[in-house]
Amino acid sequence: MTPEALTPERILEATEEVLRRYGPAKATVVDVARALGVSHGSVYRHFRTKAELREAVTHRWLGRTEGTLEELTASPGPAPEKLRDWLATLFEAKREKAGGDPELFATYNVLIDESSGVVDRHLTVLEDQVRRILEEGVAAGEFEAPDPAASARAVFAATARFHDPAHAPGWRSPTADTEFDEVVGLLLRGLRP
Amino acid sequence: MTPEALTPERILEATEEVLRRYGPAKATVVDVARALGVSHGSVYRHFRTKAELREAVTHRWLGRTEGTLEELTASPGPAPEKLRDWLATLFEAKREKAGGDPELFATYNVLIDESSGVVDRHLTVLEDQVRRILEEGVAAGEFEAPDPAASARAVFAATARFHDPAHAPGWRSPTADTEFDEVVGLLLRGLRP
Repeated sequence: MTPEALTPERILEATEEVLRRYGPAKATVVDVARALGVSHGSVYRHFRTKAELREAVTHRWLGRTEGTLEELTASPGPAPEKLRDWLATLFEAKREKAGGDPELFATYNVLIDESSGVVDRHLTVLEDQVRRILEEGVAAGEFEAPDPAASARAVFAATARFHDPAHAPGWRSPTADTEFDEVVGLLLRGLRP
Repeated sequence: MTPEALTPERILEATEEVLRRYGPAKATVVDVARALGVSHGSVYRHFRTKAELREAVTHRWLGRTEGTLEELTASPGPAPEKLRDWLATLFEAKREKAGGDPELFATYNVLIDESSGVVDRHLTVLEDQVRRILEEGVAAGEFEAPDPAASARAVFAATARFHDPAHAPGWRSPTADTEFDEVVGLLLRGLRP
């Protein structure tokens, strides 16, 4: 690849592939450069350090879910149904990531442990989407939430069982979907005016 | 110690101490017998296998919290306040165990992974206590819960953040208590008639 064709996105794609192949402990910037057929200097021109590259690839991984959920957040529709959809979509996205490609999921969990800032930003983005749905519902008389930001945090914390990677081993349990419905039902009741 | 003085409770106390000292990977029944000044045959008279001994000590560890919460469950008082107290007591008990003796907590987390039956029974006991509080509240007109067992599971799952050991690293966070109040407030609102 010529240095001109080398975009940040191409580097991040290659980094994900290298991480999948070698694992987070062994993958190096030199491996990424080799996979792209460029010098490691070319990679460093876009990402100044290995840590920066790893944070960027983690941000990209988490950002995919953020994008899907942002579309849902911005779509029209009654807020209670939207909140239920939003939580179901988050659960399904996380479950897909964990079940569809367990090695990559494990790899990202290692990266997540080392880049807490990226994760904090991710959680802020998601909680902010929930807050917007709650505010919309309050404005439409569908929800009662005197402090929507606080309620958004509560909704997010109360559904940790269905999105926090620490709970991934339970996501394939035969009762997981029933539990999800029960929890979300109770939360929606708690938000009723 | 004479074999006559050797009770199951004394063996379990010694086992906990041995686990604390050597860790779950290295602790053996011979270590337990040595700590008690008896033969390992005497220990095996009470617990037939090493696995049985480890399950019994895990059951004892989890049972302490069950006992405290059972007292609370059986005490009189309005159900909403009782449920809040029950959840706060559970959170505090787990946080104490995690923070007060982190090595023993880590040890028990290893034991818990190997004795899923003991943990399932523990969770069943706790969810059943919540169900009883909910039924009491329904009878008193303080709660609405058409299926108290399902609502108990939901309350328990929605508060995983505050009792599941997978979340222990976050329990000392400065916002943990506020988050707890927000989640429990939302759940109590969801149980209103």
